[in-house]
Amino acid sequence: MKFCPECGNHVAYTVPPGDDRERHVCSQCDVIHYHNPKVIVGCIPEHEGRVLMCKRAIEPRYGYWTLPAGFMENQETSAEGAARETREEAAAEATELALYRVFDVPHINQVYIFYRCGIVNGQYGVGPESLESDLLSEQQIPWDELAFPVVRELLQAFFKDRHEGTFPVRHSIIRRPPRA
Amino acid sequence: MKFCPECGNHVAYTVPPGDDRERHVCSQCDVIHYHNPKVIVGCIPEHEGRVLMCKRAIEPRYGYWTLPAGFMENQETSAEGAARETREEAAAEATELALYRVFDVPHINQVYIFYRCGIVNGQYGVGPESLESDLLSEQQIPWDELAFPVVRELLQAFFKDRHEGTFPVRHSIIRRPPRA
Repeated sequence: MKFCPECGNHVAYTVPPGDDRERHVCSQCDVIHYHNPKVIVGCIPEHEGRVLMCKRAIEPRYGYWTLPAGFMENQETSAEGAARETREEAAAEATELALYRVFDVPHINQVYIFYRCGIVNGQYGVGPESLESDLLSEQQIPWDELAFPVVRELLQAFFKDRHEGTFPVRHSIIRRPPRA
Repeated sequence: MKFCPECGNHVAYTVPPGDDRERHVCSQCDVIHYHNPKVIVGCIPEHEGRVLMCKRAIEPRYGYWTLPAGFMENQETSAEGAARETREEAAAEATELALYRVFDVPHINQVYIFYRCGIVNGQYGVGPESLESDLLSEQQIPWDELAFPVVRELLQAFFKDRHEGTFPVRHSIIRRPPRA
Protein backbone atom coordinates (compact mmCIF):
# COMPACT_ATOMS: atom_id res chain seq x y z
CA MET A 1 0.00 0.00 0.00
CA LYS A 2 1.44 3.33 -1.13
CA PHE A 3 -1.60 5.60 -1.32
CA CYS A 4 -4.57 6.19 0.99
CA PRO A 5 -7.67 4.46 -0.45
CA GLU A 6 -9.82 7.20 1.11
CA CYS A 7 -8.05 10.44 0.11
CA GLY A 8 -5.35 9.39 -2.37
CA ASN A 9 -2.42 10.89 -0.46
CA HIS A 10 0.75 9.03 0.47
CA VAL A 11 0.68 6.61 3.39
CA ALA A 12 3.49 6.15 5.89
CA TYR A 13 4.40 2.75 7.37
CA THR A 14 4.71 3.57 11.04
CA VAL A 15 3.54 2.58 14.53
CA PRO A 16 0.40 4.61 15.37
CA PRO A 17 0.06 6.12 18.87
CA GLY A 18 -1.09 3.47 21.34
CA ASP A 19 -0.32 0.64 18.93
CA ASP A 20 2.56 -1.83 19.05
CA ARG A 21 3.15 -2.62 15.38
CA GLU A 22 3.63 -0.83 12.09
CA ARG A 23 0.54 0.10 10.09
CA HIS A 24 -0.18 2.00 6.90
CA VAL A 25 -1.22 5.46 8.12
CA CYS A 26 -2.34 8.26 5.82
CA SER A 27 -0.06 11.30 5.97
CA GLN A 28 -3.01 13.57 5.19
CA CYS A 29 -6.23 12.22 6.75
CA ASP A 30 -4.60 10.08 9.52
CA VAL A 31 -6.76 7.03 8.71
CA ILE A 32 -5.06 3.78 9.74
CA HIS A 33 -5.38 1.02 7.15
CA TYR A 34 -5.27 -2.41 8.79
CA HIS A 35 -4.35 -5.58 6.94
CA ASN A 36 -5.64 -8.81 8.40
CA PRO A 37 -5.65 -12.52 7.57
CA LYS A 38 -8.04 -13.76 4.92
CA VAL A 39 -10.39 -16.71 5.28
CA ILE A 40 -10.38 -19.60 2.79
CA VAL A 41 -13.55 -21.70 2.87
CA GLY A 42 -13.90 -25.12 1.33
CA CYS A 43 -15.60 -28.50 1.29
CA ILE A 44 -14.76 -32.18 1.39
CA PRO A 45 -17.73 -33.32 -0.72
CA GLU A 46 -18.40 -37.02 -0.22
CA HIS A 47 -20.66 -39.31 -2.21
CA GLU A 48 -20.85 -43.06 -1.65
CA GLY A 49 -17.46 -43.18 0.04
CA ARG A 50 -15.65 -41.15 -2.58
CA VAL A 51 -14.44 -37.53 -2.43
CA LEU A 52 -15.02 -34.93 -5.12
CA MET A 53 -11.75 -33.36 -6.23
CA CYS A 54 -10.75 -30.91 -8.95
CA LYS A 55 -7.65 -30.67 -11.13
CA ARG A 56 -6.62 -27.02 -11.15
CA ALA A 57 -6.81 -25.05 -14.40
CA ILE A 58 -5.22 -22.00 -12.76
CA GLU A 59 -1.97 -21.03 -11.12
CA PRO A 60 -0.63 -21.61 -8.57
CA ARG A 61 -0.32 -25.38 -8.86
CA TYR A 62 -1.85 -25.69 -12.33
CA GLY A 63 -2.60 -29.36 -13.08
CA TYR A 64 -2.54 -30.48 -9.44
CA TRP A 65 -5.53 -31.85 -7.55
CA THR A 66 -7.39 -29.93 -4.89
CA LEU A 67 -10.64 -29.72 -2.96
CA PRO A 68 -13.22 -27.03 -3.78
CA ALA A 69 -12.13 -23.94 -1.83
CA GLY A 70 -11.52 -20.23 -2.18
CA PHE A 71 -11.65 -16.83 -0.53
CA MET A 72 -14.67 -16.18 1.66
CA GLU A 73 -16.67 -13.17 0.43
CA ASN A 74 -18.29 -10.39 2.41
CA GLN A 75 -21.96 -10.90 3.38
CA GLU A 76 -21.81 -14.70 3.26
CA THR A 77 -21.34 -17.30 5.98
CA SER A 78 -18.37 -19.65 5.85
CA ALA A 79 -20.69 -22.54 4.93
CA GLU A 80 -22.34 -20.48 2.18
CA GLY A 81 -18.89 -19.64 0.85
CA ALA A 82 -17.78 -23.27 0.95
CA ALA A 83 -20.95 -24.32 -0.93
CA ARG A 84 -20.41 -21.50 -3.47
CA GLU A 85 -16.86 -22.67 -4.16
CA THR A 86 -18.10 -26.25 -4.61
CA ARG A 87 -20.65 -24.96 -7.12
CA GLU A 88 -18.11 -22.82 -8.97
CA GLU A 89 -15.25 -25.29 -9.13
CA ALA A 90 -17.02 -28.64 -9.38
CA ALA A 91 -20.56 -27.73 -10.52
CA ALA A 92 -21.92 -29.64 -7.52
CA GLU A 93 -24.53 -28.67 -4.93
CA ALA A 94 -23.16 -29.18 -1.44
CA THR A 95 -25.65 -30.40 1.15
CA GLU A 96 -25.61 -31.15 4.90
CA LEU A 97 -22.46 -29.13 5.53
CA ALA A 98 -20.77 -29.91 8.86
CA LEU A 99 -17.78 -28.00 10.23
CA TYR A 100 -14.73 -30.25 10.05
CA ARG A 101 -11.39 -28.42 10.28
CA VAL A 102 -9.87 -25.03 11.03
CA PHE A 103 -6.30 -24.46 9.81
CA ASP A 104 -4.03 -21.55 10.51
CA VAL A 105 -1.45 -20.82 7.83
CA PRO A 106 0.28 -17.84 9.46
CA HIS A 107 3.16 -17.38 7.02
CA ILE A 108 0.67 -16.50 4.27
CA ASN A 109 -1.87 -14.79 6.57
CA GLN A 110 -4.66 -17.26 5.91
CA VAL A 111 -7.23 -19.18 7.95
CA TYR A 112 -8.91 -22.20 6.34
CA ILE A 113 -12.39 -23.33 7.39
CA PHE A 114 -13.42 -26.67 5.90
CA TYR A 115 -16.78 -28.42 5.93
CA ARG A 116 -17.71 -32.02 5.23
CA CYS A 117 -20.71 -32.25 2.93
CA GLY A 118 -22.80 -34.43 0.69
CA ILE A 119 -23.50 -33.84 -3.01
CA VAL A 120 -27.08 -33.41 -4.21
CA ASN A 121 -27.93 -36.39 -6.47
CA GLY A 122 -24.21 -37.19 -6.67
CA GLN A 123 -24.03 -34.83 -9.64
CA TYR A 124 -20.94 -32.82 -10.49
CA GLY A 125 -19.19 -31.21 -13.42
CA VAL A 126 -16.17 -29.12 -14.32
CA GLY A 127 -16.03 -25.43 -13.40
CA PRO A 128 -14.03 -22.79 -15.30
CA GLU A 129 -11.13 -22.99 -12.83
CA SER A 130 -10.78 -26.78 -13.21
CA LEU A 131 -9.36 -29.02 -15.94
CA GLU A 132 -11.38 -31.96 -14.71
CA SER A 133 -13.15 -33.18 -11.59
CA ASP A 134 -13.82 -36.64 -10.28
CA LEU A 135 -15.19 -38.64 -7.37
CA LEU A 136 -12.18 -40.50 -5.97
CA SER A 137 -11.91 -43.33 -3.49
CA GLU A 138 -9.09 -43.35 -0.92
CA GLN A 139 -7.11 -45.66 -3.21
CA GLN A 140 -7.69 -43.38 -6.21
CA ILE A 141 -6.47 -40.13 -4.57
CA PRO A 142 -3.40 -38.88 -6.50
CA TRP A 143 -1.30 -38.46 -3.34
CA ASP A 144 1.75 -37.29 -5.31
CA GLU A 145 -0.20 -34.72 -7.30
CA LEU A 146 -1.96 -32.75 -4.56
CA ALA A 147 -1.93 -28.97 -4.89
CA PHE A 148 -1.37 -27.90 -1.28
CA PRO A 149 -0.24 -29.31 2.09
CA VAL A 150 -3.66 -28.48 3.54
CA VAL A 151 -5.31 -30.81 1.00
CA ARG A 152 -3.07 -33.71 2.00
CA GLU A 153 -3.69 -33.17 5.71
CA LEU A 154 -7.44 -32.88 5.15
CA LEU A 155 -7.74 -36.04 3.08
CA GLN A 156 -5.54 -38.11 5.40
CA ALA A 157 -7.60 -37.02 8.42
CA PHE A 158 -10.88 -37.49 6.60
CA PHE A 159 -10.28 -41.08 5.54
CA LYS A 160 -8.87 -41.94 8.99
CA ASP A 161 -11.95 -40.44 10.66
CA ARG A 162 -14.16 -42.22 8.15
CA HIS A 163 -12.66 -45.58 9.04
CA GLU A 164 -13.27 -44.80 12.71
CA GLY A 165 -16.79 -43.57 12.01
CA THR A 166 -16.41 -40.27 13.90
CA PHE A 167 -15.55 -36.79 12.64
CA PRO A 168 -14.39 -34.57 15.51
CA VAL A 169 -13.80 -30.91 14.64
CA ARG A 170 -10.09 -30.17 14.91
CA HIS A 171 -7.75 -27.25 14.58
CA SER A 172 -4.19 -27.35 13.30
CA ILE A 173 -1.39 -25.12 12.05
CA ILE A 174 0.44 -25.39 8.76
CA ARG A 175 3.91 -23.82 8.91
CA ARG A 176 6.13 -22.76 6.05
CA PRO A 177 7.90 -25.86 4.75
CA PRO A 178 11.68 -25.83 5.34
CA ARG A 179 13.68 -24.88 2.26
CA ALA A 180 15.46 -27.78 0.58
CA MET B 1 -12.34 2.91 -1.28
CA LYS B 2 -11.97 5.82 -3.68
CA PHE B 3 -8.31 5.65 -4.71
CA CYS B 4 -5.99 2.82 -5.73
CA PRO B 5 -3.65 1.95 -2.83
CA GLU B 6 -0.99 0.94 -5.38
CA CYS B 7 -0.95 3.85 -7.85
CA GLY B 8 -3.17 6.54 -6.28
CA ASN B 9 -5.58 6.85 -9.21
CA HIS B 10 -9.35 6.64 -8.98
CA VAL B 11 -10.99 3.24 -8.60
CA ALA B 12 -14.24 2.19 -10.25
CA TYR B 13 -16.79 -0.04 -8.53
CA THR B 14 -17.58 -2.54 -11.26
CA VAL B 15 -17.80 -6.24 -12.09
CA PRO B 16 -14.39 -7.36 -13.44
CA PRO B 17 -14.30 -9.70 -16.48
CA GLY B 18 -14.94 -13.30 -15.41
CA ASP B 19 -16.22 -12.23 -12.00
CA ASP B 20 -19.82 -12.18 -10.74
CA ARG B 21 -19.80 -9.30 -8.26
CA GLU B 22 -18.72 -5.69 -8.02
CA ARG B 23 -15.14 -4.97 -6.95
CA HIS B 24 -12.98 -1.89 -6.60
CA VAL B 25 -10.92 -1.85 -9.81
CA CYS B 26 -8.22 0.72 -10.55
CA SER B 27 -9.00 2.84 -13.61
CA GLN B 28 -5.28 3.19 -14.31
CA CYS B 29 -3.37 0.03 -13.32
CA ASP B 30 -6.35 -2.41 -13.48
CA VAL B 31 -5.53 -3.95 -10.09
CA ILE B 32 -8.62 -5.45 -8.42
CA HIS B 33 -8.87 -4.66 -4.70
CA TYR B 34 -10.77 -7.38 -2.87
CA HIS B 35 -12.47 -6.85 0.48
CA ASN B 36 -13.02 -9.94 2.60
CA PRO B 37 -14.36 -10.84 6.05
CA LYS B 38 -12.14 -10.23 9.05
CA VAL B 39 -11.40 -12.76 11.78
CA ILE B 40 -12.02 -11.99 15.45
CA VAL B 41 -10.12 -14.26 17.84
CA GLY B 42 -10.86 -14.61 21.52
CA CYS B 43 -10.77 -16.73 24.65
CA ILE B 44 -13.04 -18.03 27.36
CA PRO B 45 -10.42 -18.06 30.11
CA GLU B 46 -11.47 -20.32 33.00
CA HIS B 47 -9.98 -20.63 36.45
CA GLU B 48 -11.49 -22.77 39.20
CA GLY B 49 -14.91 -22.78 37.56
CA ARG B 50 -15.05 -19.04 36.96
CA VAL B 51 -14.66 -17.12 33.69
CA LEU B 52 -12.42 -14.08 33.20
CA MET B 53 -14.40 -11.17 31.79
CA CYS B 54 -13.63 -7.53 31.06
CA LYS B 55 -15.75 -4.39 31.33
CA ARG B 56 -15.14 -2.39 28.17
CA ALA B 57 -13.38 0.99 28.40
CA ILE B 58 -13.90 1.63 24.67
CA GLU B 59 -16.74 2.05 22.24
CA PRO B 60 -18.76 0.33 21.00
CA ARG B 61 -20.54 -0.92 24.13
CA TYR B 62 -18.50 1.11 26.63
CA GLY B 63 -19.18 -0.16 30.16
CA TYR B 64 -20.56 -3.54 29.05
CA TRP B 65 -18.95 -6.89 29.83
CA THR B 66 -17.14 -8.98 27.27
CA LEU B 67 -14.64 -11.79 26.81
CA PRO B 68 -11.07 -11.04 25.69
CA ALA B 69 -11.19 -10.85 21.88
CA GLY B 70 -10.10 -8.74 18.94
CA PHE B 71 -8.97 -8.65 15.34
CA MET B 72 -6.55 -11.39 14.32
CA GLU B 73 -3.27 -9.94 13.05
CA ASN B 74 -1.16 -11.04 10.09
CA GLN B 75 1.64 -13.55 10.83
CA GLU B 76 -0.04 -15.01 13.92
CA THR B 77 -2.17 -18.12 14.42
CA SER B 78 -5.73 -17.78 15.68
CA ALA B 79 -4.67 -19.24 19.06
CA GLU B 80 -1.72 -16.84 19.30
CA GLY B 81 -4.09 -13.97 18.55
CA ALA B 82 -6.60 -15.14 21.15
CA ALA B 83 -3.80 -15.38 23.75
CA ARG B 84 -2.52 -11.93 22.75
CA GLU B 85 -5.96 -10.39 23.25
CA THR B 86 -6.25 -12.06 26.66
CA ARG B 87 -2.88 -10.56 27.59
CA GLU B 88 -3.79 -7.12 26.28
CA GLU B 89 -7.30 -6.85 27.68
CA ALA B 90 -7.07 -8.82 30.92
CA ALA B 91 -3.30 -8.98 31.64
CA ALA B 92 -3.62 -12.76 31.87
CA GLU B 93 -1.51 -15.51 30.28
CA ALA B 94 -3.76 -17.97 28.46
CA THR B 95 -2.67 -21.60 28.60
CA GLU B 96 -3.90 -24.91 27.15
CA LEU B 97 -5.97 -23.25 24.45
CA ALA B 98 -8.56 -25.57 22.85
CA LEU B 99 -10.73 -24.61 19.87
CA TYR B 100 -14.31 -24.17 21.07
CA ARG B 101 -16.52 -22.19 18.69
CA VAL B 102 -16.64 -20.72 15.20
CA PHE B 103 -19.26 -18.02 14.58
CA ASP B 104 -20.21 -16.38 11.32
CA VAL B 105 -21.56 -12.86 11.60
CA PRO B 106 -22.21 -12.17 7.90
CA HIS B 107 -23.99 -8.82 8.19
CA ILE B 108 -20.79 -7.27 9.55
CA ASN B 109 -18.39 -9.44 7.53
CA GLN B 110 -16.79 -11.12 10.52
CA VAL B 111 -15.84 -14.65 11.55
CA TYR B 112 -15.22 -15.33 15.26
CA ILE B 113 -12.88 -18.10 16.41
CA PHE B 114 -13.00 -18.76 20.16
CA TYR B 115 -10.78 -20.93 22.34
CA ARG B 116 -11.29 -22.26 25.84
CA CYS B 117 -8.19 -21.77 27.98
CA GLY B 118 -6.75 -21.76 31.44
CA ILE B 119 -5.01 -18.82 33.15
CA VAL B 120 -1.41 -19.17 34.30
CA ASN B 121 -1.37 -18.97 38.13
CA GLY B 122 -4.92 -17.62 38.01
CA GLN B 123 -3.41 -14.14 37.70
CA TYR B 124 -5.09 -11.32 35.81
CA GLY B 125 -5.29 -7.55 35.71
CA VAL B 126 -6.86 -4.68 33.81
CA GLY B 127 -5.66 -3.80 30.31
CA PRO B 128 -5.90 -0.32 28.75
CA GLU B 129 -9.11 -1.19 26.89
CA SER B 130 -10.89 -2.36 30.06
CA LEU B 131 -12.43 -0.51 33.03
CA GLU B 132 -12.16 -3.60 35.19
CA SER B 133 -11.83 -7.36 34.89
CA ASP B 134 -12.98 -10.17 37.11
CA LEU B 135 -13.30 -13.92 37.45
CA LEU B 136 -17.03 -14.59 37.46
CA SER B 137 -19.04 -17.68 38.32
CA GLU B 138 -22.12 -18.60 36.28
CA GLN B 139 -24.28 -16.89 38.92
CA GLN B 140 -22.12 -13.76 38.87
CA ILE B 141 -22.25 -13.22 35.08
CA PRO B 142 -23.97 -9.85 34.41
CA TRP B 143 -26.37 -11.34 31.87
CA ASP B 144 -28.12 -8.00 31.29
CA GLU B 145 -24.87 -6.10 30.75
CA LEU B 146 -23.15 -8.20 28.08
CA ALA B 147 -21.52 -6.30 25.22
CA PHE B 148 -22.41 -8.51 22.24
CA PRO B 149 -24.79 -11.35 21.28
CA VAL B 150 -21.78 -13.59 20.61
CA VAL B 151 -20.70 -13.22 24.27
CA ARG B 152 -24.11 -14.33 25.52
CA GLU B 153 -24.20 -17.34 23.21
CA LEU B 154 -20.65 -18.33 24.15
CA LEU B 155 -21.23 -18.12 27.90
CA GLN B 156 -24.55 -19.97 27.78
CA ALA B 157 -22.99 -22.77 25.74
CA PHE B 158 -19.87 -22.88 27.87
CA PHE B 159 -21.65 -23.31 31.20
CA LYS B 160 -24.05 -25.85 29.68
CA ASP B 161 -21.11 -27.85 28.29
CA ARG B 162 -19.30 -27.48 31.60
CA HIS B 163 -22.23 -29.03 33.46
CA GLU B 164 -22.23 -31.89 30.97
CA GLY B 165 -18.45 -32.26 31.18
CA THR B 166 -17.87 -32.22 27.42
CA PHE B 167 -16.90 -29.38 25.11
CA PRO B 168 -17.66 -30.25 21.49
CA VAL B 169 -16.46 -27.75 18.87
CA ARG B 170 -19.48 -26.11 17.27
CA HIS B 171 -20.26 -23.63 14.55
CA SER B 172 -23.12 -21.16 14.50
CA ILE B 173 -24.37 -18.06 12.74
CA ILE B 174 -25.33 -14.77 14.33
CA ARG B 175 -27.76 -12.81 12.16
CA ARG B 176 -28.60 -9.14 12.35
CA PRO B 177 -31.14 -8.66 15.15
CA PRO B 178 -34.57 -7.57 13.93
CA ARG B 179 -35.23 -3.85 14.37
CA ALA B 180 -37.56 -3.00 17.24
